[in-house]
Amino acid sequence: MDSDIDIARRAPLLPIADVAARLDLPADALHLFGRHIAKIDAAASTSLARRPASKLVLVTAISPTPAGEGKTTTTVGLGDGLSRIGKRSLVCLREPSLGPVFGLKGGAAGGGRAQVVPMEKINLHFTGDFHAISSAHNLLAAMLDNHIYWGNALGIDTRRVTWRRVVDMNDRALRSVVSSLGGVANGFPREDGFDITVASEVMAIFCLAETLDDLQRRLGRITVAQRYDGTPVTAADLKAEGAMTVLLQEAFQPNLVQTLENTPALVHGGPFANIAHGCNSLVATRAGLALADFVVTEAGFGSDLGAEKFLNIKCRQSGLSPDAVVLVATVRALKMHGGLARDALASEDLQALDRGLANLARHVAGLRRMGLDPIVALNHFASDTAAEHDLVISACRGRLNTLAITCRHWAAGSAGITDLATAVVSAAEARTSPFTPLYPDTADLFGKARAIAREIYGAEDITVTTQAARDCERITKAGFGDLPVCMAKTQYSFSTDPTALGAPEGHHIEIRSIRLAAGAGFVVMLCGDIRTMPGLPRVPAAEVIRLKNGLVEGLF
Amino acid sequence: MDSDIDIARRAPLLPIADVAARLDLPADALHLFGRHIAKIDAAASTSLARRPASKLVLVTAISPTPAGEGKTTTTVGLGDGLSRIGKRSLVCLREPSLGPVFGLKGGAAGGGRAQVVPMEKINLHFTGDFHAISSAHNLLAAMLDNHIYWGNALGIDTRRVTWRRVVDMNDRALRSVVSSLGGVANGFPREDGFDITVASEVMAIFCLAETLDDLQRRLGRITVAQRYDGTPVTAADLKAEGAMTVLLQEAFQPNLVQTLENTPALVHGGPFANIAHGCNSLVATRAGLALADFVVTEAGFGSDLGAEKFLNIKCRQSGLSPDAVVLVATVRALKMHGGLARDALASEDLQALDRGLANLARHVAGLRRMGLDPIVALNHFASDTAAEHDLVISACRGRLNTLAITCRHWAAGSAGITDLATAVVSAAEARTSPFTPLYPDTADLFGKARAIAREIYGAEDITVTTQAARDCERITKAGFGDLPVCMAKTQYSFSTDPTALGAPEGHHIEIRSIRLAAGAGFVVMLCGDIRTMPGLPRVPAAEVIRLKNGLVEGLF
Repeated sequence: MDSDIDIARRAPLLPIADVAARLDLPADALHLFGRHIAKIDAAASTSLARRPASKLVLVTAISPTPAGEGKTTTTVGLGDGLSRIGKRSLVCLREPSLGPVFGLKGGAAGGGRAQVVPMEKINLHFTGDFHAISSAHNLLAAMLDNHIYWGNALGIDTRRVTWRRVVDMNDRALRSVVSSLGGVANGFPREDGFDITVASEVMAIFCLAETLDDLQRRLGRITVAQRYDGTPVTAADLKAEGAMTVLLQEAFQPNLVQTLENTPALVHGGPFANIAHGCNSLVATRAGLALADFVVTEAGFGSDLGAEKFLNIKCRQSGLSPDAVVLVATVRALKMHGGLARDALASEDLQALDRGLANLARHVAGLRRMGLDPIVALNHFASDTAAEHDLVISACRGRLNTLAITCRHWAAGSAGITDLATAVVSAAEARTSPFTPLYPDTADLFGKARAIAREIYGAEDITVTTQAARDCERITKAGFGDLPVCMAKTQYSFSTDPTALGAPEGHHIEIRSIRLAAGAGFVVMLCGDIRTMPGLPRVPAAEVIRLKNGLVEGLF
Repeated sequence: MDSDIDIARRAPLLPIADVAARLDLPADALHLFGRHIAKIDAAASTSLARRPASKLVLVTAISPTPAGEGKTTTTVGLGDGLSRIGKRSLVCLREPSLGPVFGLKGGAAGGGRAQVVPMEKINLHFTGDFHAISSAHNLLAAMLDNHIYWGNALGIDTRRVTWRRVVDMNDRALRSVVSSLGGVANGFPREDGFDITVASEVMAIFCLAETLDDLQRRLGRITVAQRYDGTPVTAADLKAEGAMTVLLQEAFQPNLVQTLENTPALVHGGPFANIAHGCNSLVATRAGLALADFVVTEAGFGSDLGAEKFLNIKCRQSGLSPDAVVLVATVRALKMHGGLARDALASEDLQALDRGLANLARHVAGLRRMGLDPIVALNHFASDTAAEHDLVISACRGRLNTLAITCRHWAAGSAGITDLATAVVSAAEARTSPFTPLYPDTADLFGKARAIAREIYGAEDITVTTQAARDCERITKAGFGDLPVCMAKTQYSFSTDPTALGAPEGHHIEIRSIRLAAGAGFVVMLCGDIRTMPGLPRVPAAEVIRLKNGLVEGLF
């Protein structure tokens, strides 16, 4: 069987200027990175008005399992499917992080016949956006410690520095460090640590800012520490936001690539979906809606995390609203949610599948609570049986009152997903109202968390630690109580226990602590153990990644 | 007066494909980064043979002072001057590091009418090479700690890990840290630290490797730690060199830009000139010699550090030899070497100038020891007087038996440097023999250091600490005694005391410790205090760098 990379390399790519021409983008609006990648000039992309008939399609999924759902693959496939049925379509995706590429995962640009290309470049440095974000983040950190070193005129309490450093690498050794050791010339020792770049607030800001001016204002609002008197110190206090914006200027332009079937794709930004809101940049989404009639975009993890944040953070801040929602599920993942072990997934098991539908049902209910009626995309795997597909489709039609459609884009490309594309067009064209926010801005912070926990996670309630209560009081008092909340919770379960698959009931969501992301414009509620710096596995993918005859081997 | 950036922005730049066409490089050999930057396809650049008549011109300088010498400016100006007198010329420079840009220095792409452009892009992320080098370096570090975490099958002694991490930032807080804190999940706590990216051995390797295969072999040879039994652990033992090479593949292609007068310039690689050898990549130099008849390149700092290493490391490894050498001096810097304070430099002082010529004389003598006869480029500053220039020129002709030529490229561009260009052509065309290496490979390590100290630095001798003696024994026993040595010494003086300007005598060079750079292929002798991670000044340049109407302000 062909690997993803073999398929990607055989695909006849168009020169990127030809892809742009399909969107009526002139060549001089492109900033080329070789033959198949371009940034779209900021002036060109932000001066364009939204096409009146344009539709935004959100692709989300059931709770992820190791069995795989294929959300990115479905997003790409749907974009191609829409092109195939004659729509001017475009795909908006997140950029992959280098960390997972060298860790467990290999590449992250779709798979099979539904990929964005050139996949090696997209998975490696691409256009350098994440490096620019790392530089901007770490410049602020260096200026902070430098300020302390040169006399600390702002009165920063070095025990209360919250701005860590970042690196785009899975490196557990950097999670917790003591820095500024080695004597007088190196500053004042303090506890410090590194997150992976996708967890940086700069990444979240980058993905929510409307313009470079907005970007700079948001960067200036970042809270990096507290003074001895408890008041916050911001990036603007350190005069860092100007240079940070300069470092991000070029990166802020959306990256244009193409799918294997030459559908245009904007791949731009990539915040973590737990510690942050988990979707591609707003400027890319807006550029998409100005250039195409159907923009297909994905949110991170399952709909409880990704879609909830897409709606209550990104759409709330920007005024966008999806015109159609696709909820991706697979027979294999549903069987895992029904209690089947990973090594038993290859054989038919209608009982486990039926039990697993509880997970799908709760995702459907959560989306309906926000005024959205999803179409279920049942992503076909080779081991699936006809009876299994029939069960899911009839259960959706019956119990869930939802349309479910089998998709075969992984194996067949756009030809395998025209039914879904057609249904998405009908749904989007029929829709007239925006989504329903889950809570008003004015609700208090724990009220917002409670609404998410009860109505999306199906939890009994939230519980709040003393630390979280104190954090909430401080953040509210500082005037940030009106921000939306960003729940940092395991993606594997509706609860905080990653092993509780399916649709757990009666659980409580413990909020351990709260972080303010004043620049991004949300408040992060940390529920359970959330890692902001992954580690490498026992045998990292890096060990087998190498060049062979000038081509990259080991990215899969 | 116009700032460098104003001049740079007004310059009529050619499309980079037109610059390439002057070198008979076809458009399909270019990997474009926007309109004015391209990488030259590796296949195209390494398959080209050296032009038979091509000449390599090395630009070096007297010992640097805060008064400024203008070595990069002279390199760029000379390239333009050679073009002006009808030669097919090309400039090879190092890439600037982000650290100094946000620290003291602002940009580093020449100045006045002798610049490489687009200067903002070259000074900021450029084509991402340094980010790629940082990633490759830090991947190795993460794989090292990951190996220890997962059971340490190689028996690495965590007290003897020599591979630090890097960031392209001036950040003194990271010089010395304790990492892997925070409990069992984060590994085994150990002393660690960060260097700036230009100090990375990966950077040195990147700049000395002939091909991607050679790059990978060299990366595999990097020594990262010792085992409990004292034997070295390499990057190849950790299976890291393949993925590191993949990260560097695109970066390894030379970057083509242009000067203000449209002379082609290859700006590629940039190792520190103290901890490493301080010149642009070998692949860029070789590509230059395949594309142009005159390749003008610079070495870091003064000739005692930069030119000595250019010759005894880069030329020794590659078989190259300069056909002409230009030694840059200024009246202002010579007066500082003659004892004048920085704030007194604006007024004529022939006595101080005459005393300062001792510095120039020692540089000339050192270069002659290596079989090279430099032409002195007296880089004109506005405050210089005619009597001062006459004194330098006549002293050179008399006492030093050397040709000195006043250059006005900073103010006048190529028109101000045609005399030097003409003299360089004559010298290069007259030359038939290669340079004389200062020592044979077979000399012992301290013998090599002694030759440099006595014959280049004019020192009495070297002294060796107990630590250095131990290091030397270990490195020699491990089979690396035949490598050339790379002296890590202050650039400001021929001694290890940065305040001893001019031409100190009777001094000893203390060698404190020795580091093996097995991948780069040299042994670093640390003399005096050498910082591998700079700090930011009290008021960093970053505080005033910002966007104004879409243009970068504060880079100068």
